[in-house]
Amino acid sequence: MPIPEALTALEKILGDRLSRSKSDLDLHGRNETYFPVMPPDAVAYPENTGEVAELVRICAAEGCPVTGWGAGTSLEGHALAVRGGISVDFRLMNKVLAIHPEDMDVIVQPGLTREALNRELRATGLFFPVDPGANATLGGMAATRASGTTAVRYGTMRDNVLGMEVVLADGRVIRTGTRARKSAAGYDLTGLFVGAEGTLGLTTELTLKLHGQPEAISSAVCAFDEIGPAVDTVIETIQMGIPMARIEFVDAATAAAFNAYAGADMPEKPHLLVEFHGSRRGVAEQAQSFGEIVNDNEGVGFEWSSRPEERTALWTMRHNAYYACLGLRPGATALVTDMCVPISRLAEAVEATRADIEAASIPGPILGHVGDGNFHAILLVEPGNHAELEEAKWLSHRMVERALRLGGTVTGEHGIGMGKLDYMAAEHGPAWDVMGQIKHALDPQGIMNPGKMVRGN
Amino acid sequence: MPIPEALTALEKILGDRLSRSKSDLDLHGRNETYFPVMPPDAVAYPENTGEVAELVRICAAEGCPVTGWGAGTSLEGHALAVRGGISVDFRLMNKVLAIHPEDMDVIVQPGLTREALNRELRATGLFFPVDPGANATLGGMAATRASGTTAVRYGTMRDNVLGMEVVLADGRVIRTGTRARKSAAGYDLTGLFVGAEGTLGLTTELTLKLHGQPEAISSAVCAFDEIGPAVDTVIETIQMGIPMARIEFVDAATAAAFNAYAGADMPEKPHLLVEFHGSRRGVAEQAQSFGEIVNDNEGVGFEWSSRPEERTALWTMRHNAYYACLGLRPGATALVTDMCVPISRLAEAVEATRADIEAASIPGPILGHVGDGNFHAILLVEPGNHAELEEAKWLSHRMVERALRLGGTVTGEHGIGMGKLDYMAAEHGPAWDVMGQIKHALDPQGIMNPGKMVRGN
Repeated sequence: MPIPEALTALEKILGDRLSRSKSDLDLHGRNETYFPVMPPDAVAYPENTGEVAELVRICAAEGCPVTGWGAGTSLEGHALAVRGGISVDFRLMNKVLAIHPEDMDVIVQPGLTREALNRELRATGLFFPVDPGANATLGGMAATRASGTTAVRYGTMRDNVLGMEVVLADGRVIRTGTRARKSAAGYDLTGLFVGAEGTLGLTTELTLKLHGQPEAISSAVCAFDEIGPAVDTVIETIQMGIPMARIEFVDAATAAAFNAYAGADMPEKPHLLVEFHGSRRGVAEQAQSFGEIVNDNEGVGFEWSSRPEERTALWTMRHNAYYACLGLRPGATALVTDMCVPISRLAEAVEATRADIEAASIPGPILGHVGDGNFHAILLVEPGNHAELEEAKWLSHRMVERALRLGGTVTGEHGIGMGKLDYMAAEHGPAWDVMGQIKHALDPQGIMNPGKMVRGN
Repeated sequence: MPIPEALTALEKILGDRLSRSKSDLDLHGRNETYFPVMPPDAVAYPENTGEVAELVRICAAEGCPVTGWGAGTSLEGHALAVRGGISVDFRLMNKVLAIHPEDMDVIVQPGLTREALNRELRATGLFFPVDPGANATLGGMAATRASGTTAVRYGTMRDNVLGMEVVLADGRVIRTGTRARKSAAGYDLTGLFVGAEGTLGLTTELTLKLHGQPEAISSAVCAFDEIGPAVDTVIETIQMGIPMARIEFVDAATAAAFNAYAGADMPEKPHLLVEFHGSRRGVAEQAQSFGEIVNDNEGVGFEWSSRPEERTALWTMRHNAYYACLGLRPGATALVTDMCVPISRLAEAVEATRADIEAASIPGPILGHVGDGNFHAILLVEPGNHAELEEAKWLSHRMVERALRLGGTVTGEHGIGMGKLDYMAAEHGPAWDVMGQIKHALDPQGIMNPGKMVRGN
């Protein structure tokens, strides 16, 4: 048990920024969903890259696990300390290091949250668009390759991280990428670390792309009698090239949850929630073109609004969908599923999922980022009810198998973490072994977020 | 010398599709620019993935080098057989395997050229936008992370390859990615193989994103007295969020080359060549907004046109810029430089490069994809004139050092190949060693395109 030696050495460099209080260990052993508590042996609060590097060198010498911690908002238990060790909480590394308005990029520390970043950017006319809903840290969002409601227009973290500083498993500090918008200089290490879920190293700095705040924004909601025409509307919209900023689907059960939780007044039917960004004229034109597609598909209630308060209310409601759905079954906890398919198979995937859930004993509203072919069911289970949790897992399993059968992926945006590890072989086949080879090359002891991502880690 | 054994075994499976004719070896030892001829020992023409895998297994058993070959249009000698061995020419694997119009993707073999793909797509209303100028193969474009004139709007190969089939250095065949638009399932192997220049494996299939052919296209040219205001126009345009489809810079020397080669009638001044894609009204609005920025920066001659023949003439001229510039010095060969910087440093970088070239003894028109901060000088040297080649290399060296000093990259799009290997340490520091670790993990014998990309390979 080499962890005590690591703790002694770490205390020397971190002092009281190495915490072993029960409440801290508990907090860093918890997750937002159904996984059991898995506390680390200690929580470190480094203040700079040098401390992170020193920390990792100590842990490497002692074979002690190291797992990064951002805001704890992951839905797949990414940051759980499966083998104990050190949870590295980045809350003290939460600064904006440099804003370059002319180049539309920003350099930040990993513990900064996306909302805090956007507050700092407000006066620049720029914003950081990736929006997974939760107020996650940017380091965590990079680690899980987060996306969310705006990815259909602005891309995911894969598309919005220009470069990183990373502390590797042996304590080496590297920089990936540059501030140039593109590069053909060697292997794309930035792309490799984005989405690696902290299993190859700890990110200590990120260079992010920014986007101009649009001159005009408008949003709208419309309802459909069936899932099919709602999804057809999405497909036609994407194919027309209408540059949707957001195009979100919620099913009838989610609409009911919005009504109950947010005092909305939506018919209990499938809906699309959309947003347009652009010039005043451009937004009007986009809204008009979209409205025609809605009409062709017999959608109703489409009315667009540029009033900020209506827009804010709409997206606040959407962001709180998780809590609204939890409210459908007071006291429940949720297993949130995640799948992503080619858009031509989306209606089929949503409808089959809906049918599965209707045949099950637990409720599960469906909603998603349908412009990307990505959706979720929020499966509501009674805490401690083993049979219900198993049923939820079975429903998730059916969704995942369906995703693969339809040419898609087992996770569009929530990542692998603890919840999807068993599907890596099915999705990747022998390519999963290649991930293992890369992991082994960069972390031969397997100390970085062990128990995740690769086979036998 | 294990290569003869490999050749004997390869002949058994490929028959006369393994060529050892002098003309074939010569052809596959040549390049478009200044590198000496480096022929392979044989050229293989596989017809399918199974043959490629068998070929690689044989070469792995004998330690024989394997280098992919597309259209031979690389500008950095990527496909030269530095250590001999087998050049794998993909010309027989040039089919479109499946078009999915609803999902806006296509599955192709690597030997298909981008022009052939777009011919096949014409009736679908879709197109593949990445356009490096040359009619390169899609496998080669993926290997070098190609981009070009349209990357400012549609992204580079990094952004447009959804998935790949790859034959690894031990003959294993893997698939990366899915047909879903995004995924958070594990390490981004697609991103790792795109831009790896064939040093980690040979691509045998690609799934590519397609885009809708815009309803309206218009293009324009405008002139500036100085480089500075031309670049300021670009910066303001990007910051305004005008979704330029193309925004290209050519300097006075390039304008002169166009006049001589293509019968253009351009003032011998810096120019911007631009294109707008969108709805009819959207394109008109974009052109108007751009025109205002041009006026503010005292640009002249801005007039937009939606006439296809004018547009075609403009971009044909731009695509032939390399040959137009060669025409400035009959009989010359070219060293084409490539650098990419944050856009705020672009004017400084272009002006310093212009000054360097004016102080040198060789001509070198400058042009580039300035929306991305990426530009080139086409340095014209007399074949066999060692002093001139050294001078060109020195000019390129100055550009590369400047790129790094300004926070940019030593290559925006041409890649590393033979020409930029010496700059990998300077750009990446210890991250270059990480590339070496990945290379060693996946190709421990170093048979895949040896002599390239990593240290001591």
